[in-house]
Amino acid sequence: MEKIKRNERLGAMTRILTDTPNRVHSLGEFCTMFGAAKSTISEDIDLVSASFKRFGLGEVETVAGAAGGVRYRAIPSRERAQKTLEELSERLSQPGRMLPGGFLYTSDVTAESTTAQALGEILAAQYYDRQPHFVLTMETKGIPIALMTARMLDVPLVIARRDSRAYEGSAVKINYIAGGGNTHIETMALARRAVSAGQRALIIDDFMKGGGTLQGMVDMMKEFQAEVVGVGVMITTVEPKVKRVEGARSLLVLEGFDDATGRAIVHPSDNFMD
Amino acid sequence: MEKIKRNERLGAMTRILTDTPNRVHSLGEFCTMFGAAKSTISEDIDLVSASFKRFGLGEVETVAGAAGGVRYRAIPSRERAQKTLEELSERLSQPGRMLPGGFLYTSDVTAESTTAQALGEILAAQYYDRQPHFVLTMETKGIPIALMTARMLDVPLVIARRDSRAYEGSAVKINYIAGGGNTHIETMALARRAVSAGQRALIIDDFMKGGGTLQGMVDMMKEFQAEVVGVGVMITTVEPKVKRVEGARSLLVLEGFDDATGRAIVHPSDNFMD
Repeated sequence: MEKIKRNERLGAMTRILTDTPNRVHSLGEFCTMFGAAKSTISEDIDLVSASFKRFGLGEVETVAGAAGGVRYRAIPSRERAQKTLEELSERLSQPGRMLPGGFLYTSDVTAESTTAQALGEILAAQYYDRQPHFVLTMETKGIPIALMTARMLDVPLVIARRDSRAYEGSAVKINYIAGGGNTHIETMALARRAVSAGQRALIIDDFMKGGGTLQGMVDMMKEFQAEVVGVGVMITTVEPKVKRVEGARSLLVLEGFDDATGRAIVHPSDNFMD
Repeated sequence: MEKIKRNERLGAMTRILTDTPNRVHSLGEFCTMFGAAKSTISEDIDLVSASFKRFGLGEVETVAGAAGGVRYRAIPSRERAQKTLEELSERLSQPGRMLPGGFLYTSDVTAESTTAQALGEILAAQYYDRQPHFVLTMETKGIPIALMTARMLDVPLVIARRDSRAYEGSAVKINYIAGGGNTHIETMALARRAVSAGQRALIIDDFMKGGGTLQGMVDMMKEFQAEVVGVGVMITTVEPKVKRVEGARSLLVLEGFDDATGRAIVHPSDNFMD
């Protein structure tokens, strides 16, 4: 095989590692691809790793053991995450986002792949050690952020529906309490084949007010005998202070709206990375 | 500024370019980041470009002009795209995917970020020259593929809903004919602020049978005075042969089901890349 220069290897290797976050690639895979010795590939990895560290581009790490190799994780620094969340807070505080009923218009932001990816990186970084088997969300607005979180963790996304559609096969349906009070009951459905007993679920959604939908997802996981290892949302309202779901982590906080200007009062939460 | 070696630059530059597909980065951005001359950065780009070409990892191209710079596009080769679609066809042909009513269970596949990304790369590659301003899909199952297509094109995703939710503000609602016959009417809603007149829309969905939902999205774009520059789906059924929507491109074809085994008969379409 023709010898491939380090300069050529570094670009290709970086592309392959960063395209599959959290996936372990064996050194042998790169040895075969580049016709190089393991020691050479190890040096390449050290170079990429050092470069990423220097420019705050995430972590390239060697994983020891039989199933070992090298892995990329897009873990943002605290400073970079803080900056992302501050910029997002500013966008969400722009005038014209207040909707009747005290809702905040966020659909343009949540469906932007760049934003969804940046938030997915921050959320995923909190849950690597919990090793979820999948990310669970409830349709619709949370899907882009949940998908990007799942991408960073290299696990599938599972989507709960408002009703069970014909093309999902047999489903588990539950009722849950949505909104304020105890009177507003909604239905959530999840395809029976989507989750297996004993799996670990990470629940991700875009918005939390009372926490009813998130608690609905927690209850749904009980039906499947799956374990919930974390609950993360993009934005939570300050009120009501007591949420139906326990232990949820939020990246942003919505304090309310300025009556005079109609602007939302949004800021990064204090504990988004604790 | 301390001098940064080529080896270090190549990894960082690759990571930045591939993390933002189709976005033009000025050479000046990299000159500042690395404290290097433009000629040096140009040589780096040539190296990354050659490496990507050699290993079929997409295109790194220099864009001329005042707003010029360098850009990454994840354009898969025809062979690689064919292989992706054949592997996907095989997965979808596994037993147990047939649902009552002749539906195919695909939710596990469509919600997998790796698959959604691979399909998004193939779909986006067909529409770079149409320069869509956004990708439009209808909730729910098409969202992951549509999001990844939008990511590859570096444009926002816009999601049409089955009903207009309180948190989306004022919306345009239309009725459209879904399913066979002319009797099954459904409703589609889209936030008024999501689309501006004169914008170019690329419509992406996971599944086409009669094409009614896709034609609904085309009609919705007429309401917004937006232009539809393409319609792409992951999979289309052979029957009915005449679809409500014109000119849709499909990556896969569902011929039907094998009565004896219950397996779906799925294969890549002939013209997925024409």
